[in-house]
Amino acid sequence: MEVIELIKRRYSCRKFDPKPVPKELLLQILDAGHLSPSGMNAQSWCFYVVTNREKNLAIGKKIEEAAADKLGEMVKKSHERGCPDTVFYGAPAVIYCCTKKSGGVLKEFDLGLAVQNMLLVAERIGLATVPVALAKWYGDEIIRHDVGIAEEDDFFIALPVGYRAADSGDEPRPRKDDYFKFIE
Amino acid sequence: MEVIELIKRRYSCRKFDPKPVPKELLLQILDAGHLSPSGMNAQSWCFYVVTNREKNLAIGKKIEEAAADKLGEMVKKSHERGCPDTVFYGAPAVIYCCTKKSGGVLKEFDLGLAVQNMLLVAERIGLATVPVALAKWYGDEIIRHDVGIAEEDDFFIALPVGYRAADSGDEPRPRKDDYFKFIE
Repeated sequence: MEVIELIKRRYSCRKFDPKPVPKELLLQILDAGHLSPSGMNAQSWCFYVVTNREKNLAIGKKIEEAAADKLGEMVKKSHERGCPDTVFYGAPAVIYCCTKKSGGVLKEFDLGLAVQNMLLVAERIGLATVPVALAKWYGDEIIRHDVGIAEEDDFFIALPVGYRAADSGDEPRPRKDDYFKFIE
Repeated sequence: MEVIELIKRRYSCRKFDPKPVPKELLLQILDAGHLSPSGMNAQSWCFYVVTNREKNLAIGKKIEEAAADKLGEMVKKSHERGCPDTVFYGAPAVIYCCTKKSGGVLKEFDLGLAVQNMLLVAERIGLATVPVALAKWYGDEIIRHDVGIAEEDDFFIALPVGYRAADSGDEPRPRKDDYFKFIE
């Protein structure tokens, strides 16, 4: 499949099937991320992969509770959709994407480069994904503790990975116009 | 070509052929970037594309001069390699990648997602690229003025695009080990 087709086809998943993801597939996704370029070749990323769905669910629930005042409406909607949690959407595996504290000033941009490779390879091998920023906003301390993020790393974004639930109801999101300008 | 092969095959270019890039190909690259996901679907990126090689060279030269004390050794090396400038490496086209000041806290990460799509599609259609951070570090004001970046946008990283010079001597860079950890 052409890469542009893969880019067009992929869209985020907000309800996962509980079916586990084989470790071999997760390794392919990680490999793709690690092969992205980075400023000064710093490779200031690292990935903690939790493959125990119950553990991810428990972390998601804790974050829901900690941010109940902010997530209230979202939590209600998720539960109505049959989604067990609003943070990882019931995903069987979560890749907790981190940057190295020792990394350079481009580390969040570089992590973006790496994560996009991961999203595309996941799509190619039949897996759905969704980068989740609120895991950091509301769950940084919970994740740091429960996942066991090392002192030298910063958690930045969660990447739930799994098979899209048949009834997820997810749709691609519209794009804005006017995002570029040519100058001769 | 499989996306993982494309990811493995691509590496940055530090000496471009002067041959111009057809606008149609640049549009394919921009489209790929714009189709990446973004936090809250904010799409906080925008791209200024300068297709006049002389203009890009002039900007590169100005940045070289402004940062002569920091870039001295790099400039010497580039010129020895027959590269006309150390910032854009003689690229015929440069995509000046920006974020919207109004964008959310994830805008640099999101720009990374978009740029990785652009790198991959460029590779697929035979074009070489290199994300250049020093263009921002040493040339922010010069680029803002000479490219005409709008007040509401922040320049973040330059993306020279073109055909790799036959004698570029570029090589893929080595990868570190130990970048992930599995937790059951």
